[in-house]
Formats: sequence, C-alpha cells, structure tokens
Amino acid sequence: MESTKVALGIDLGGTKTAFGFVNKKGKCYGVKSIPTNSHQPAKNLVKRIFDVYSDWIAKDKEKYQVMGIGIGAPNGNYFKGTIENPPNLRWGTTKMVELIEKDFDLPAVLTNDANAAAIGEQKFGAGKNLKNFIVITLGTGLGSGIVVDGRLVYGHDGFAGELGHMVVRPNGRLCGCGRRGCLETYASVSGIIRTVFELQANLPQDSKLRKIAYHDLDGEQIYKLAKEGDPLALKAFDETTRILGEGLATSVAHLSPEAIILFGGLSLAEEFIFKPTKQYLEKNLLTIFKNKVRIIPSALPPGDAAVMGAAALMWHELSLKKDNPKEK
Amino acid sequence: MESTKVALGIDLGGTKTAFGFVNKKGKCYGVKSIPTNSHQPAKNLVKRIFDVYSDWIAKDKEKYQVMGIGIGAPNGNYFKGTIENPPNLRWGTTKMVELIEKDFDLPAVLTNDANAAAIGEQKFGAGKNLKNFIVITLGTGLGSGIVVDGRLVYGHDGFAGELGHMVVRPNGRLCGCGRRGCLETYASVSGIIRTVFELQANLPQDSKLRKIAYHDLDGEQIYKLAKEGDPLALKAFDETTRILGEGLATSVAHLSPEAIILFGGLSLAEEFIFKPTKQYLEKNLLTIFKNKVRIIPSALPPGDAAVMGAAALMWHELSLKKDNPKEK
Repeated sequence: MESTKVALGIDLGGTKTAFGFVNKKGKCYGVKSIPTNSHQPAKNLVKRIFDVYSDWIAKDKEKYQVMGIGIGAPNGNYFKGTIENPPNLRWGTTKMVELIEKDFDLPAVLTNDANAAAIGEQKFGAGKNLKNFIVITLGTGLGSGIVVDGRLVYGHDGFAGELGHMVVRPNGRLCGCGRRGCLETYASVSGIIRTVFELQANLPQDSKLRKIAYHDLDGEQIYKLAKEGDPLALKAFDETTRILGEGLATSVAHLSPEAIILFGGLSLAEEFIFKPTKQYLEKNLLTIFKNKVRIIPSALPPGDAAVMGAAALMWHELSLKKDNPKEK
Repeated sequence: MESTKVALGIDLGGTKTAFGFVNKKGKCYGVKSIPTNSHQPAKNLVKRIFDVYSDWIAKDKEKYQVMGIGIGAPNGNYFKGTIENPPNLRWGTTKMVELIEKDFDLPAVLTNDANAAAIGEQKFGAGKNLKNFIVITLGTGLGSGIVVDGRLVYGHDGFAGELGHMVVRPNGRLCGCGRRGCLETYASVSGIIRTVFELQANLPQDSKLRKIAYHDLDGEQIYKLAKEGDPLALKAFDETTRILGEGLATSVAHLSPEAIILFGGLSLAEEFIFKPTKQYLEKNLLTIFKNKVRIIPSALPPGDAAVMGAAALMWHELSLKKDNPKEK
C-alpha cells in the first residue's frame, strides 16, 4: 500500500488542543483531542501531543507520510513562530514552532487560529474560488482572517486581522482587552449572552431566559428559545446581527471583499444570523459597496475545521517552497 | 540631447485638473492646471488637457519621451478604467481611460486619488522602504490608500480603502454619503470646521472664531488661531485628532501597518496633528499593536504630490509589464 502524504494540523486552544492528519485535498483522517493544561509548561503539552502522535503513527506506519506540521493558536505569530502572551494561556511568549520542530523533527509553521481558519476556507472550503474575502469566527470571542488578492494579510508584525477589537460603540461594553465597545463584546457567543442580560434589564417582556442565571446560559439555549419564538431571544439575535452588520460595513470600507465567511458556534444559529447580518450590513454600506458582498457559511466540517485550517497552513507553506525551491 | 522618459500624471479633481511630467525617479518637470468644468462632457476636459499637453510637448520636442499616462480621480476604478459617479463630478460613470487613450494614443491607467497618493508615497515618498502602510489624505474629505505586503489593496471591485467612511460615531454627524458618523465628518478640513461650530455651541469660552461665519472659515484660519493659543481652535484640533486616533486604531486592528502617512491640507498643521494623533491612536490600540505604528508626514512636495502619485501609478504599471512581458 502506498502511503498518503499528510500534514499534521494542531489547533491549540485555551482549554483543549486538537490535532489530526489532513491530506493535500482536505481529507481529514480523524481528530484527537487532549487537555491543553496551560498551567504546566508548554513543552509538557508538546510532549503529550507527541506521545499520542507517535502511538497513532506507530499503528499506521505504512499509511501516513507526514510532510510537516501546521499550528493554529491564539496570538500566534506567523513571522516569529511564537505564541505571544494570549489571555487564555499562561505561558507568556512561547517559541512554539521551535519546540514542535525539536520534538517532531518535522518542519512546522504557526499562525493565529482565525488566520488558520481563513487559510482552511481558502484551500478546502468556502473561499476556494475567492480572491478577496474575510473569515469571521463567532466563538466565545470574535476572530478574523483577511485574504486580499489571494494572500492572507499578516501586517508588518504578523498580527493583522483583529476585527473583534474594532470599536463599534465608543464607551460601550468593557472588553477583556481592557478597552470599551469592541465588536466582540456584542457579536460573539459571550456578546449575545451579555445582550440577553441587557435586554432583561431594559425590556418588560417575560421570557424563559429570565429563569436562567448568567453562568448557566449558553448560545445554544438562546438559539433554541429563538426557534420557539421567545421574544427576548429573538431580540438578542436581532441586536447581535445589527451590530455585526455595522462593524462589517467598516471592514468592507477597508477591504472591499467579495464575501464574508461566518464560522464558529454562533454561526450555527443560521436562520437568525446570515440573513439579518446581510440586511444590516447592506443598510450600513457606502453606496459603491451595496449589493456586492455575500455573507456565506463556512464550508468546512465544524468539528474538524480548526485542525484542517492548521494543516492547510502547512500545505500552503509547502506549495510556496515548491514554487521557490531555492529558499529554505 | 537625449530625451527623458516621463509619465504624464493627471490629478482630476472636482474643481481643477492638474497634470505634469514625472520621470522614473520622481523628478517632476512642472505642473499645469486647468478648470475641470464637469458641467461640460468629460471628453471636453480630455480635449482641453490634450491641447495644453500638445503645446507643452511641441515646445520641448526633444526633451520628453512620454511612456504613458496615470490618472488619479475620485471614485476611480483601477480594474475598469472608469470614474464611477463621484459626488463632485457630474458625469455619472465615465470611461476615462478609453477617452484618454484615444486622444493621446498612449497607454493609460487610472485609480482613485487617494490610491494614487499611496503609490506616489511608495515609489517616491515616505513609503519607499515600507511594505505595510496606510496613506490618509486629510483634505475636504478623508481619502485613503492601503498597501499590504508591498501591494496596493484594491479589493475585488477596485474600491477598497474608503476609511473616511468607517463609522466612528453611531448616529453621529450626517455625512455627504447619506450615512451618519463617518470618520471624514470629524477628521478632515470640513470636519474640523464642523467641530469649531459644535464647540461654539457647547463651550462658554470666547474665541476669535466666533467672529467668522461658517462659509468664511477655512482650515488655515483655525491653524493660525491655534498657533496664537485660541482655546476653541486648540480644542478643535484636540477633538479632531482624538477621533482620528480612534478611527485609525480600527484600521490598525484590520491591517497592522508599520506606518500611517498623513497627507493633505489639514496635515500641514503639523504640530497640532501628528503628535496628538499618535497619542490618541496609542491610547486606543489593542496591547499587541502598541508602540509599533509610526504616524509620519508625506514626503512628497505638497503642490506636486497628486500629479506625482498619478504618474507613479503609470510607472508601476510599466514595471509590472516589464516583469511579465508576455502579458499585454
């Protein structure tokens, strides 16, 4: 049996780290997950990934030829291969590519998780035929990756694409970043939960949401109640998409993309997200941008998407080296 | 005498149209200016430019070898060579490249005026050694051009870089575009004039500005009074740079540039613009972007800059053709 060339994609998150093999065409050969345990040193995590990986490879010795490793991580710096002091990991700045390359003896490349998602969509998903698009991940926070003229925008330092931290409400909600009114305090899972509590304060209507404490509420419950017609849940989606539409109009004014791909937890509440976001976006666009930008869902399988994005980053890197064989 | 290879740069504005010859190194051989007269057909303007150009060339027959024509114009579309319905010209959509190429029998290329400024800075000015920067023109309105990884960002339709129309104050000042709270209603010459009148309403202090009617006030008067220590004039610059700093923080969150180049009328009030804009920008930046972005002045001569930018666009186009000789 001929072995399959694959990249190992690693999605390094605050709570868990998932990884799996992905071939050049985007076929994912299963994903495994372990706790990140960032209270222990980063090299401990790398060792634990390597142990699971070694067992996996040992079992399928002839099956996989691993070409390299792509990593998506919060505050991942593509240029330096570092993870730089993200709020949800306790490592300060970590030379993650160096650690991975040492233990695995394979080339590795790293970027932030939302950039990895954008490359995943470009190589394997909804961005396949697009040259100019933005990927927005609506998870606990709001992440983003920007593709201009077919290339991911890194900026001069590797940190471009922090759309979750554009200010949409001056003096608005306090954000985890220390500033006020950032888009992600409104348009994300944590944002819609905050909105539900603001609405409970501001509106008189009764709602099943009034029986649920802040710590017990999640995005799925709001979605479920919206489907049942709960007025506060419906209003919460309306507010969320209204502010998301306003914020995305500012992104369109910068970049004039042909599409914005929505991805992550909140985007699964499809009927309450895509159409209203599009309507509020259109309402806020400058005339020259009207009726040009599509708002579309991710085309990657939700469970494997982050790992596929990380692997896509490595495949992209390998294709660059093929094009420029003289460079390392 | 050997002739000098030059590009003709045309800066097409709402009131006047300036043009001149610029060589590959950014030497400008004088600029001539005629009224745009957009109440007459566009081809009338093209003919009048051609007449002046022909006389100029006839006088210096051996001196110039004109390689092509670059045009900067409001709502200029690089991809289509059209000027698309700008508020300050009355032509609707005009196939300007086609008109110019026909009359001049030379290759022509067009983009919007702020994009031309960005290419001018990149080729001849403050952007020479930069790969990631934004040019902001603070004229009557606020224009912008974005360079990512050495390449101007056009977006999918040629209209990227409308930073003047990001909303910084939801439900704020009514903009000429029909929307509310756009950055250019605060940070531009017309914006600071509006601010002066808002301050006259809101503050009790006396000021020489209270003797000047709206239609009689210009940016230079506000600058002059600020230098004299007039409290309202100083406060107007403070407000303007505060909101500009806030807006640019959103642009940095998108693009993470190494520098932002300020250009145009209002930027000539240097001491009241650069340092405070930088301070307000820093105050509003996400931590990972702090102390990284420079705010710098244009390095093009104010009078010739727009013409040089338009010519730079043609020189850039010619260099692309040299690199890809197979393409037309």
